[in-house]
Amino acid sequence: MGRTGELRTGHGRVLTPALMPVVDPSNLIIKPSEIKREFKESLIMTNAYFLMKKFGDGEVHEMLDYNGPIATDSGGYQILRYGEIDADPDEVVKYQDSIGSDIATILDVPTGAAASRNHALETVRATVERAERATRFRSNPETIWCAPVQGGKYLDLVAECARRMGTMDYHIHAIGSPVEFLEGYAYTDIVDLVMTAKMHLPLDRPVHLFGAGHPMVLSMLVLMGCDLFDSASYILYARDGRYLTHEKTLKLEDLAFLPCECPVCTGYSVGELKEAPTDERIRVLARHNLHVLFGEIRRIRQAIVEGRLWEYVELKCRSHPKLLEGLRRLMNYTEFIERFDPVTKPSAFDYLGSEAVRRPEVLRHRSRMRRYKPPSAETLVLLPSFEKRKVMLENLESIHVVRLVPPFGVVPEELEDFYPLGQVVVPKELDEAQINTVCESLSEYLLRYGKMYRRVLLFNDPKRWGSSLVETCSKANVRVEVIELRKFERPARR
Amino acid sequence: MGRTGELRTGHGRVLTPALMPVVDPSNLIIKPSEIKREFKESLIMTNAYFLMKKFGDGEVHEMLDYNGPIATDSGGYQILRYGEIDADPDEVVKYQDSIGSDIATILDVPTGAAASRNHALETVRATVERAERATRFRSNPETIWCAPVQGGKYLDLVAECARRMGTMDYHIHAIGSPVEFLEGYAYTDIVDLVMTAKMHLPLDRPVHLFGAGHPMVLSMLVLMGCDLFDSASYILYARDGRYLTHEKTLKLEDLAFLPCECPVCTGYSVGELKEAPTDERIRVLARHNLHVLFGEIRRIRQAIVEGRLWEYVELKCRSHPKLLEGLRRLMNYTEFIERFDPVTKPSAFDYLGSEAVRRPEVLRHRSRMRRYKPPSAETLVLLPSFEKRKVMLENLESIHVVRLVPPFGVVPEELEDFYPLGQVVVPKELDEAQINTVCESLSEYLLRYGKMYRRVLLFNDPKRWGSSLVETCSKANVRVEVIELRKFERPARR
Repeated sequence: MGRTGELRTGHGRVLTPALMPVVDPSNLIIKPSEIKREFKESLIMTNAYFLMKKFGDGEVHEMLDYNGPIATDSGGYQILRYGEIDADPDEVVKYQDSIGSDIATILDVPTGAAASRNHALETVRATVERAERATRFRSNPETIWCAPVQGGKYLDLVAECARRMGTMDYHIHAIGSPVEFLEGYAYTDIVDLVMTAKMHLPLDRPVHLFGAGHPMVLSMLVLMGCDLFDSASYILYARDGRYLTHEKTLKLEDLAFLPCECPVCTGYSVGELKEAPTDERIRVLARHNLHVLFGEIRRIRQAIVEGRLWEYVELKCRSHPKLLEGLRRLMNYTEFIERFDPVTKPSAFDYLGSEAVRRPEVLRHRSRMRRYKPPSAETLVLLPSFEKRKVMLENLESIHVVRLVPPFGVVPEELEDFYPLGQVVVPKELDEAQINTVCESLSEYLLRYGKMYRRVLLFNDPKRWGSSLVETCSKANVRVEVIELRKFERPARR
Repeated sequence: MGRTGELRTGHGRVLTPALMPVVDPSNLIIKPSEIKREFKESLIMTNAYFLMKKFGDGEVHEMLDYNGPIATDSGGYQILRYGEIDADPDEVVKYQDSIGSDIATILDVPTGAAASRNHALETVRATVERAERATRFRSNPETIWCAPVQGGKYLDLVAECARRMGTMDYHIHAIGSPVEFLEGYAYTDIVDLVMTAKMHLPLDRPVHLFGAGHPMVLSMLVLMGCDLFDSASYILYARDGRYLTHEKTLKLEDLAFLPCECPVCTGYSVGELKEAPTDERIRVLARHNLHVLFGEIRRIRQAIVEGRLWEYVELKCRSHPKLLEGLRRLMNYTEFIERFDPVTKPSAFDYLGSEAVRRPEVLRHRSRMRRYKPPSAETLVLLPSFEKRKVMLENLESIHVVRLVPPFGVVPEELEDFYPLGQVVVPKELDEAQINTVCESLSEYLLRYGKMYRRVLLFNDPKRWGSSLVETCSKANVRVEVIELRKFERPARR
C-alpha cells in the first residue's frame, strides 16, 4: 500500500511520501526558506489558529515570507491538549481560505486516546458535521482541503467516520488522535487505527498521519498507505536537548559519539555540540533532527522504487520491541494488503525474520495453491529448496517434482520461476516458523493430492528439518520413501 | 566481546573500533590530510609492497605527506589475488621497520577460500614460520606489529595458527582470508572463522579483520571482538559507480533518491551526482562512501557505550538474509560469548526477533536457574509476565510466585528485579520461539521442584499462550489448577 506520488499545490509540486516541518510563525528558529535551501524539500506546515491570533488577515506566504507550498493545521491538536480554543470552526475554515493556504484542514474535534465510547461517538458526529459544513466556505480553487478521521480506539467509529468522509468533497484525509498512542509506543493501536481508516477511505486520496515525526516509525506508516507527515518534533526535541537517531531519541548528554553522517554531525564534534551556546545548540540540533527525518523519507522513497519497502520495514521494526509488536499486528491485515501488493517486483523476496512467514506474497502463494491442479505423474518427489534437481533424479521417470521452499511451502517445479518463488533469499539455518509454514503447506497438498501418486519420495535433510517433514507426511496418511540427503551436512572442517 | 579501546601509536592515539581507509600512494584521490579533516579520524592504511616498489627508501609519513598514524599492509592480499609477488618476506618486514610504519604487518601466506586442506596446512606452516622470523628484524620500538592468522575454512588449522601466533611477541593479530567469504555473503563462514580465531588468540590483543569495508557487516564483526577494519571499498566502489548504504551497495544509476544524510548527499541532488564529470563523481562518491562507513563506526561505538551492541546487531542483520544466517550461526557460540557479556548493562534487554531466545543473557539465566533452590511454600503460582501480581493473589497464603517471562522462562519472583529480568522489553504478541523457550524452562523447573508444592496454580492466557503452558504442566506430570485470565483479552472495540 506504500506509494510514491506527486501532490500539485498552488505553490509547486510536492513528492510524497512527504514530511512537513512545522514552523511556529512567532518563533522561526529555522526559516522556511532556509529549510528549502538546506533540505531541498519545499512543503512546510504551520498552525492557522496561531496565524489568526497573531497576524489576522493577510496572505500566509507573506506572513511566513515564503513562496513555497504551505499547509495549515486548524488547531484541532490544541483542543486535544488544552480542552478548547476560542475559535469558531467555520471561522477557522474561512480564515484558511482567505489567507491562501495550499493545503488547509478543517477544525475537527479530536477523540483522544482516553475517550469514553460516548464521547468518541460525539467527536465523530461533530467532526463529520463540521466537514459537511466546511465545504460551503471555499472560494479559493487552488486550496487542497483535508478532513480528519476521528474515532480513536473505537475502530467501528473510525471505520464509520472514514466511510462518511470518503463520500464528501475532500482531497486529503488526515488520521486523527494518534499522538498519545505514538508517545506511548502503542504501535499495535496505531496499526489498528491506520488500517481501519485506510480500509474505509477512498484509496486514491492521500492520507496524512498527524504527529508521527520519528524516523523509527515512518516506514511502517508508509507501508500502510500514509503519504503525509508533520514534524514539530525536530524543534521540540531540539529545545529539550534531544537528538534523533534512526532508531530512537537520545539525550544530548548521553552521547559519547555522534552516530550520524549529517552536515551537523560531521561538522561538529560531540564535545563542541554539547558546549555550544543554547541558541546555537537548539538551532543545530533542530537541523540535525530534520536531516535524519528527511534522510529517512528519501530512504523510504528509494525502498518503494526498489520494491523493497516490506524488507525495509522489517529492518526498521527492530528499532524497538513495540515496533516489532506493531509489525506482528500488521500481519493481521495481510489479506487486505495483499490486494495492493504487486505480483512482481524488481527485487528478491528477502526473509529477514520469522514475521516474514505472514507476508502478503506468502499468503498469496498459499491461497493460489488451493486452485492448483498437478499434472499426472506416478511419483511425487518432495525436494527441499536448497538442493539441486538434476543430481538425484536422473533415473526416475513419470515424476512430479515439488519443492519445499520456506517460507512459501509447497512449490510445484513448473511454477518455480514465477515471482517471487525463484527469487526467495532465506537463511539456510531454518527457524521454527520457516519449518512450520512448509509443513502446513505440505500437509494441505498431501491431503488434497497425495492419493494421486503411486509413490512419494521425500529427499530429507534431518539436520535442517529434524523429523518435521516425515511426521507431516505420516500425519497426512501418505506412505513416503525417505532418502536422506547426507551431502547436506556441512563439509568436515576439523 | 565488542569493546571500545585506545590504540597508542607513534603518531597519536586511535579510538577503536577503527576503520582504516586504504590509500593508494600512486593515486591519492582523497589525500590523508583531507581524510583527517573531513572525517575526524586519523588512522589510514597503505600497502608497503607498493611503497617499496614506487618510493624505495624513505619515511612513510613523508611519502604520503601525512603526519598521523599510518598502518601498512604487506602484500599478502596481492599474493592471494595474483599468485605471487616479487618480494622476500624478510625484506618486506625490514622495509616497514625502516620507513617508520606505525602499524606494520608481516608478509603472510594467505590460505584463500578454495584451498585444499594440504595447501591450507602449508600456508599456516609458512605463515607461522615467517611470523617467528619477523620478530628478529625490529629496530623501531614504536612500531606496532601485526601477525595474521591463516587457515581459511579449516577451523582446526585456524585454531592452531591462532594459538601459535598468540605465543609470539605481537601486538595485533589480523584474521586472514575472509575476503572471498565476504564477497560471497558467506557470513556463516565468517562467523566460524572469526570466532575460532578469537577463541584461540589472547583476548587482550586487538584484532584486525582484513577487507571488511561494508557498513552492513561491521557491527556483527565488532560484536565478535574485531577492533580494526580496512576499507579500500570506499574508493573501489566509487570508481565502479557504486554507492554504499547502511544495508547494501547500489549502482548510482539505480538511485532515484539519495538515501543518506551526509554532506555529499545533502549537497548534491541525485541528478547532479549522476551527471557530474567522472573525476568529480568518483571523488564525491568516495567521500559519501567514507561518510557512511565512519558514521557506522560511530553508531557502533555509541551502541557499545549504551550497552546495546547486541540489539544493534540484531537490527543490522536484517540488511540481508545471509547476515541473519550469520547471526543464527553466531548463536552456536553463545556459551563462549556469555563469559564476556556484562552481567548488568545500562539499557534494557530488547527482544527484537526470534533469534533473541538464544542470546547470552538468556543462556546465563537458564544455566543459573539450574543452581537455584526455591523457598518453601505450599502453593506454586505460575504467572505470565504481563500480569500484575497484586490483583489475583490477595487471598492466598504460603505461596511462591514464579513469573513466566519470555524469552527467559521461569523467573522466581524474588529474582525479578535483577538485571535483565526486570528490564525485559518484549512484544506481547508472542512468537513460537518465545513460547517454546518459556515452556522448556517451565518443564525443567517442574521436573525438578514440582513435587515440593501441595498446589500449583497456573494463571493462563490462552489468547497469547494457546494450550502450551497447560500441556507443559501435564507432560511434567504436575496437576495444575488453571485460572483463565479473561481480562487479558483485548478490550472490545466494536
